[in-house]
Order: sequence, then structure tokens, then C-alpha cells
Amino acid sequence: MRYALAVDLGGTSIKFGLVSEAGDIVLRHERSTPKAGGPPAVVAAIAEGLQALLAGEAAPALAGVGIGIPGLVDPETKTVALAPNLGWADVPAGALFAEALPWPVALENDARAALLGERWRGAARGVDDVLLVTLGTGVGGAVLSGGRLLRGARGLAGEIGHLPVHPAGVRCGCGAVGCLETEASATALVRHVEAALRRGEPSALAGRPLSPVAIAQAAEAGDAVARAAFDRVGRFLGLALAGLANALNPALILLGGGLASAEAFFRPAMWAAFSAHVLPAHRAAVDIRRAALGNDAGLVGAAYAAFSAAVAG
Amino acid sequence: MRYALAVDLGGTSIKFGLVSEAGDIVLRHERSTPKAGGPPAVVAAIAEGLQALLAGEAAPALAGVGIGIPGLVDPETKTVALAPNLGWADVPAGALFAEALPWPVALENDARAALLGERWRGAARGVDDVLLVTLGTGVGGAVLSGGRLLRGARGLAGEIGHLPVHPAGVRCGCGAVGCLETEASATALVRHVEAALRRGEPSALAGRPLSPVAIAQAAEAGDAVARAAFDRVGRFLGLALAGLANALNPALILLGGGLASAEAFFRPAMWAAFSAHVLPAHRAAVDIRRAALGNDAGLVGAAYAAFSAAVAG
Repeated sequence: MRYALAVDLGGTSIKFGLVSEAGDIVLRHERSTPKAGGPPAVVAAIAEGLQALLAGEAAPALAGVGIGIPGLVDPETKTVALAPNLGWADVPAGALFAEALPWPVALENDARAALLGERWRGAARGVDDVLLVTLGTGVGGAVLSGGRLLRGARGLAGEIGHLPVHPAGVRCGCGAVGCLETEASATALVRHVEAALRRGEPSALAGRPLSPVAIAQAAEAGDAVARAAFDRVGRFLGLALAGLANALNPALILLGGGLASAEAFFRPAMWAAFSAHVLPAHRAAVDIRRAALGNDAGLVGAAYAAFSAAVAG
Repeated sequence: MRYALAVDLGGTSIKFGLVSEAGDIVLRHERSTPKAGGPPAVVAAIAEGLQALLAGEAAPALAGVGIGIPGLVDPETKTVALAPNLGWADVPAGALFAEALPWPVALENDARAALLGERWRGAARGVDDVLLVTLGTGVGGAVLSGGRLLRGARGLAGEIGHLPVHPAGVRCGCGAVGCLETEASATALVRHVEAALRRGEPSALAGRPLSPVAIAQAAEAGDAVARAAFDRVGRFLGLALAGLANALNPALILLGGGLASAEAFFRPAMWAAFSAHVLPAHRAAVDIRRAALGNDAGLVGAAYAAFSAAVAG
């Protein structure tokens, strides 16, 4: 049995895994992302983390290392044009990793790595046309079309958090008004509740610290403000997914990211808006379901990228 | 020099061309689309049209026939799942053409054929990430990503006329409310003017037969109602193009179809809305321009499909 090393590089922490050719994560490790020292410090932390992961293990047969990176990654040139959460711009990551690691390195954008993981071992197995939507602090995504990841002219394909869905809404971090992530992210959910509380709507959430988990618990208990906030998230998400389904014709839409675990609360409104706006031909043909691998999707997909690169030569 | 036969099959007429390997249309022919007799009558009309096209010519070296079809075409199985303007459903077009024609036949959806044509010989030469938007009676399109045409799970990728852009707007033929084609098609342009005239807004168009050409002439002359109608088309088109640019990251957006010839009148509003909603990274990097081949794009692209199929085997 061969193995790949997998790295899921985030702004806060770095996850490491030893992944079998069957897609099982057989060893894990995690450490904090260095805040100082720039790309060399992060590369050193990854080298140390991989050593720690393998410490005490009999040396496995390794196909290589796959690394998922939260930013604009070119898998061909192995450069990172931009990774805002890491403070990286125009980093020759492939060269830095080649100096620090004794194995071949494959790089992939984190959302695309997650989609590769879901397709290999998760909820998208055997499906060639998939839209992954990640619902977290922001909204991101990735697109597989005809079995191939879309990259776009500059590696930015899949940034579906910035579909305009509510031009009369609030301003997004990107500068535009009414982007999907201003309405259907975890951040937006909290803001919807804050706005209702400011309007004096009665809620068990009044005066309490607000979080997506607290809002989900209140919704579970029947709180009208919490439920209305989830309805609003679902309505705008459903509208955006209908437009994307009409334009891209996926067979499957996967919902990932932390907020997807609260899907039960926004699904009815999401489905109603989706059904109202999707082409009739797609209504029964497009499946919308939760991603299956949770936080492991990125590691599994990074390993897949490493195995694929090894096969490609 | 080798040649391909090209057919652009529409609901009203069928265009024929003999196209050189350099992409020049060296012979042309056109006839009406048979209204009765179903697929066999259309196939017979195409066979006759091709004979008429070549009548009296010294037999050229032919790579094959490419046929653009307004509907859901599977180029692999050569079946047409649906072509509403022809009244076709589940037609084994490849088999019918194989019986009627002595040359190998390649089939392609008409919008995708137009995009292939623009990339080969028109405004998208050398560009791998292109969004084509056709603005006519309705709004359609096609997407090239990484040099590859997107098809989607059921061949419906590119139906961007049904992006929801105005959920409080009017009902579309598809059943949904506020699709792009209810706001930014030639049909919508006329409807915007009709609504203004009903509201009693003063205009040189009052009491005259309305057409996109008449509205463009009035806009040229400074008519406020005509200009406002084009502004509205541009605003919703720009909003939709921004969302698509954010999701797909094309390097180039091409505007085709009859209404694109009036681009001067809707471009300012389109560009303002596009700039306001597109990610800053795309603002200077995405070019929006008119398709170059006009009505010939479909013929040139159908020929390209025929040459490609001949090369592929």
C-alpha cells in the first residue's frame, strides 16, 4: 500500500495527514500557523509538522505531498499569486517546498482540494458535474465540470460568494453591495439576528452572545428571530444556487463549511427559492446535499492531488 | 486545401457554407426550415441544401459536415435530447444524418458552435476562458473554460438567460420570475418601452410600431424613453455578467446576437453595473466586447467542429 502526505494550510492552523491509496487518513497532526516570518516560516512549520506526523513510524512508501492553500494557486507553476489569510502575494511556493521537503509536492487551492476529496471519498463519488459551496465566515466554492476542475483565466473560478443577490443590501468586504456572502454566510446569519434584535423583535437571543451555534439552538427551540434569520440565509442561497445551476448544469450541489451543519434550519427556504428560480429541466435532476467529509475533505483532496501528480509523472 | 461543409440549423432557416481549413466561407446557400415532416424532412432539406451548395463545383476535398443545432446536443452520442424551436425530442440525429449524407457528421449546440467560431476566427482568438452571451429574442450563451467547452450534466451549461436578476420582476417563459432574459433581451427592450409609454412618458416612439431597431434610432436621436430602456437592459446585463465573471473568471466576455449591435446604447449602464459588482481583481482584467463574426459565427464554428472530429478520428 502506498501513501501520500497531505497538508491543509489554513490562516489559523495547519492540519497534516498520512493518507492511504484507499483514501483513509491513517495518521494525523495539527499545529498553529506561524504568524511571523512570512512564507519561509510557514514552509518550515510544514516540514516540521510532517516530521512530527511520521515520527516513530516505519517509513511508508510515499507518492508525495499534497498541500491545500487558501488562495490563488497555480498547480502548474506551483506559485501562489495571492493568499490573503496568509498574507502571501506572488510566492514561489513550489520552489520553497522543494528546498524544504524530500518528496514531490502538489499544490491546490483549498476549496478545489475539498471538492477533489468529496469526489474521491465523500458525497460526490462518481459525479462529474459538481458545484461545491462552502458556507463559513465567508462563502466560497469550487466547480467540477465534465470531471475537470474549473480554474478560470487567473485561478479565480468558483468565487461564488460574490454573486450579486441583493443589490439593495449591505456592502461586502470586496467593495460591492449585496454579494451572496453578505446574506448567506455565518457572519450574515449573526448580522440578520442582530438587526432583528435592534428592531426590538422578541427573542430568547436578546442580550446573549450571538454565534451560529447559539442561533441554531434557538431555532431548534422555535425562536422566531432565529428561524427568520435562517430563512433569509436559505432564501438568498437558494436564489444563487438556482442561477448557478442554470448556468453550469451540475448534477450535484454540495454544501460544505461550518454553516452547512445547520442545513436543516435553512433548507426549506433554500429549496423553495431554488425551485422557484431553477429551470424546470433541472428541478428534479439537481441534487443538493451536505458534503460528507467535513473538515477532512481538504486533507483527503490534497492527498488525491499528490497521488494524481505522481501518476502524471 | 481541405474544406468542411457547415450547417447552421435554425427554427426559421437553414444556412449552409463551404468553409476552408483557414476558416473562410467560400460558398453559401440558405433555405427555409421545413415546418412539417419532423426530423426526416429537416434531414432531407439539409441533404438537398448541401447538394445545392456544391452544385457545379469541382468536388472539393471534404473533411466532413458540422451541424449547429438549437438545442440539447450530445456530440458523443450524436443525439438531440431537445430542440424546442424545431419541435425535436430524443432524435437520433447522428443516425439520420449518417443515412442521408456521404460524409462524417459532427453535431454541436448552436451557441457552442458560435463560440467555437469566434475563438477560431473571431473576437476570441487565442483566449482560453471565454463567456459568450447571445442577446436576441431571448438570452443564451456558452462557456469556454481552460480551452474546453462546458456542457454540464445534461448538456445545459451556458443557459445564462435564466440567471435570476430581478426576483420582483416579471415572469419568464421558463416559469420563474426575473430571469436575465426578462430584462436584457430584445423582447425585454420593447417591453420596457411599452411600459414607459403606458405610463404616459413623452417619447417620439408613442403610437409607432416598436422594434429594437426603432428604439435604437430613437435612442440615437436622444429620446429619453428609448435611452432609459437601454439603460435598464445594460444595468441588469452588467449585474449578471459581474456574477458570472466572479463565478467563472473568464478573460473575455463576448456579446453576440442581434441586440449586441445596439451595444453603444446599453454599454455605459452595463459597464457601471459590471464594475460595481465584479471582484476588484477582475475589474481591469476582464474584457467585454462584441462578437466579431455576426451571423457567420455558427457556420464557422460548425466547420471547426467538423475539422476537429476529422482530426480526432
